[in-house]
Amino acid sequence: MTPENSHDLRLPNRFLELYTPEKIHGDFVGKHIISVEQFESNDLKILFDATASIRKRLKQSDRGLLELCAGKIAVTLFYEASTRTDMSFQAAMRRLGGEIVAASNGVQFSSVYKGENLADTVRAAGCYADAIILRHPDVGSSYEAAYYLDKLREQIQRKPVIISGGDGVGEHPTQALLDMFTIFDFKKGFDDLTITLVGDLKNGRTVHSLSKLLARYGARDVTLCLVSPAKLKMPEKILAELKAANMRIVETEDLSEVIGSTDVIYWTRVQEERFADPAEYAAVKDSFIMLPSVLAQAKPDAILMHPLPRKNEMGTPADHDLLDADPRSVYFQQMENGMFVRMALLAKVLGGLWV
Amino acid sequence: MTPENSHDLRLPNRFLELYTPEKIHGDFVGKHIISVEQFESNDLKILFDATASIRKRLKQSDRGLLELCAGKIAVTLFYEASTRTDMSFQAAMRRLGGEIVAASNGVQFSSVYKGENLADTVRAAGCYADAIILRHPDVGSSYEAAYYLDKLREQIQRKPVIISGGDGVGEHPTQALLDMFTIFDFKKGFDDLTITLVGDLKNGRTVHSLSKLLARYGARDVTLCLVSPAKLKMPEKILAELKAANMRIVETEDLSEVIGSTDVIYWTRVQEERFADPAEYAAVKDSFIMLPSVLAQAKPDAILMHPLPRKNEMGTPADHDLLDADPRSVYFQQMENGMFVRMALLAKVLGGLWV
Amino acid sequence: MTPENSHDLRLPNRFLELYTPEKIHGDFVGKHIISVEQFESNDLKILFDATASIRKRLKQSDRGLLELCAGKIAVTLFYEASTRTDMSFQAAMRRLGGEIVAASNGVQFSSVYKGENLADTVRAAGCYADAIILRHPDVGSSYEAAYYLDKLREQIQRKPVIISGGDGVGEHPTQALLDMFTIFDFKKGFDDLTITLVGDLKNGRTVHSLSKLLARYGARDVTLCLVSPAKLKMPEKILAELKAANMRIVETEDLSEVIGSTDVIYWTRVQEERFADPAEYAAVKDSFIMLPSVLAQAKPDAILMHPLPRKNEMGTPADHDLLDADPRSVYFQQMENGMFVRMALLAKVLGGLWV
Repeated sequence: MTPENSHDLRLPNRFLELYTPEKIHGDFVGKHIISVEQFESNDLKILFDATASIRKRLKQSDRGLLELCAGKIAVTLFYEASTRTDMSFQAAMRRLGGEIVAASNGVQFSSVYKGENLADTVRAAGCYADAIILRHPDVGSSYEAAYYLDKLREQIQRKPVIISGGDGVGEHPTQALLDMFTIFDFKKGFDDLTITLVGDLKNGRTVHSLSKLLARYGARDVTLCLVSPAKLKMPEKILAELKAANMRIVETEDLSEVIGSTDVIYWTRVQEERFADPAEYAAVKDSFIMLPSVLAQAKPDAILMHPLPRKNEMGTPADHDLLDADPRSVYFQQMENGMFVRMALLAKVLGGLWV
Repeated sequence: MTPENSHDLRLPNRFLELYTPEKIHGDFVGKHIISVEQFESNDLKILFDATASIRKRLKQSDRGLLELCAGKIAVTLFYEASTRTDMSFQAAMRRLGGEIVAASNGVQFSSVYKGENLADTVRAAGCYADAIILRHPDVGSSYEAAYYLDKLREQIQRKPVIISGGDGVGEHPTQALLDMFTIFDFKKGFDDLTITLVGDLKNGRTVHSLSKLLARYGARDVTLCLVSPAKLKMPEKILAELKAANMRIVETEDLSEVIGSTDVIYWTRVQEERFADPAEYAAVKDSFIMLPSVLAQAKPDAILMHPLPRKNEMGTPADHDLLDADPRSVYFQQMENGMFVRMALLAKVLGGLWV
Repeated sequence: MTPENSHDLRLPNRFLELYTPEKIHGDFVGKHIISVEQFESNDLKILFDATASIRKRLKQSDRGLLELCAGKIAVTLFYEASTRTDMSFQAAMRRLGGEIVAASNGVQFSSVYKGENLADTVRAAGCYADAIILRHPDVGSSYEAAYYLDKLREQIQRKPVIISGGDGVGEHPTQALLDMFTIFDFKKGFDDLTITLVGDLKNGRTVHSLSKLLARYGARDVTLCLVSPAKLKMPEKILAELKAANMRIVETEDLSEVIGSTDVIYWTRVQEERFADPAEYAAVKDSFIMLPSVLAQAKPDAILMHPLPRKNEMGTPADHDLLDADPRSVYFQQMENGMFVRMALLAKVLGGLWV
């Protein structure tokens, strides 16, 4: 049997049923972070408090931060490139006094390309690491990684954790956490907010995870406007979760109907590749490009978010420059928050690791 | 003359005669580590004591470890990918408070590909580093590196060292040291042991280095069983060394003859590519696949080692799972020991570097 | 509009007019370092004092150095490989207690290859970093980066800086600074020196920047000998600057005319690709190869510099060995100085960043 076959025998998505990550329940120490479903409202409040405090200490240049993960090692295993997530985790770990280990030549040149399977690579990394930041194209791969790390824990009497940096089209928990924190930070909570998600809501991983977390947070009187092409609507399964959480849902193809009453605009890209017929794409695309003239219709205290990187969904570089100059555009603060949220998460998860 | 030609003029293996690395003789400070022949029994005992102590301190989360290489820089030059060796050295250095520098884009994109020769690249790294971890496909390259670093030392009045991370089909000293430590650690010594090496003993670098170190250790009443296909037997030259060290040697193609009396099973891969005739490979291959049914024949207190990564020489992923669950399988502890041995080595070599 | 077009709309060299970097004027804190034109004679004296002091402290293993950038993060963005500059900056930052963040898989696999433009990538890095080390093939890219980082500063209330690691055929300020320091260090100043630049003076970035800095330093009675093939002479524009600074200029194709009276020989490569007609190259090439027989004609106290890496412009590896053994060859000390100058620069620029 060739390594290729043998690899096929372990389908990562099998582990979605086989493995259930522990709930946080107020205690982060030593827990894998692979799904937003581990978080309840109270866990988010704890994390957001820690995030705000870490940001404050960093901007005051508090050297004490360097003690929080001193002596801890995170190994980054990125099976696909994601510069932002990668750099954000690296900076977060190092600003806490921790260290990062990554394959010098990149994982694409490493033993995984010599046919080694994920289960072995993750345990190899676990032999050296306190945390493994895993980015992988296959849904369920972070579950598989957690499953095998738990087995390794018994052998080495240390407790390395998996922190997901994105799991194919599945989950990207830390992206959802930083999006939530950014709304929380600018709006001082979620009650009574009108939040508008725009773009490809059918395939967009970030909008799915963010919606789920909003539902789990359980805020009062939240209106969620879902603006997408008819072909790219939010999946029924997620809609059901949102309604079960008593959120008011407005689905439309026309942003102008809702932008005037929106507190938070979350912009994402509609990819031409999603349309079989180019004419279909041509028909809708202009409705899904954020331009200064569009932002002009938003409330003066609205915020415009975007996970970045952006392309033509925000027009030309000249449009970018105009949008960036608008105080309602907070996507760079959102990106910086990504580092602060990851710092808080790493400090909480690794903090008491050896204690 | 083109850089290619000029490169050819310096054949790394020439430096095997031209350069002799210093013996350790109980003092590691400032010495290049490029061959197991630098180590005597006493040096191994010193290193193993330090390794056990460092492991204990790490598992107790002793922050004092971060002082041992604080302010020291190791540059990793990996001319071929070796994720494990690379990550293991990185984690080792960083867990001692030292730092790692590697070409951001990997050495395969670096100046070596603009025709620069090893002698210059190594000296460039030496200008920035206290230690250079060198992995190179050519036998003798670590000797060449040490030769030119010694010249650089005179010019910069600092003493950067080379530590070999594997030298083509030549040596991989730190792999041999971690294998020795693992046996020492589980068996509390080497006297009276029966150690069985299985696989391609003709071409296997790790089994060669391990055998040599066993011979140099000079334990009493060691039996070494060499199990390989007839075509892939241990080279005569090494056999002679082993016999000169009064080891009992048993050569066979049939593991079942010896597994029942074996204390240490060291498993390696038999590569199909080694056989001109596929039929020949087909005839032997099943005898060189470790399966749960094979391990069942081993003593209850035997240990099963493997340098990893593994492929089908341990069967399917389902077989892996069963083998991994057997307490006799210690290859993950062996891998973790790799980090501890490298920590001990780096601490000893760099410790007094500037003193 | 495709990302490709949109990228074209922002031509980096446009920013050469659009953006003027701040002069140092004795205060380095929080300033981008993108051009030698930011430096006056006094700034160089301050930097060289700091460099000498840092080198002394490093060779004494002074742990206090680790305080100078503790808690600071530098992100390296290398859009083209440059192992030396990359490793030199990494080692510099880490020897000051600071940390480096780089895309694990190298920037060539990162989001910039998904069509993201430089302005966004640099601001993303700025969200995580205190300093960004930028190496880019396009002239003006470091100006563009500084322009957009200044906009980001207003949004995140932190002041990340750009430090250029080379800007296409434009500038490479830290290379020029380390070249200047090396001359200053060996010759205790610049007054009354005869400095000879050899090679492709038309296209050589390093000789251009070095010449400009020499002119800006304003030393007394400096003679600058410019030795190049007729086709590859120093550009008129730079010659004018040099004459305006009252330097004595000697242009020739024949090194032997000037080598005997030269204090500093700065050697660079003449690339065959620069000649349309191979015969033309063949005619001149031997005059531009440094050999032991050539160095023999130099003064006993002359120094031979080279930016490295070197190829056949220093003959064969056998010639290299002979040249390297000559005490007048200081190119490895020059390379080590690169780390010390970058340490001084980083300490000065980042030192008070949060104060």
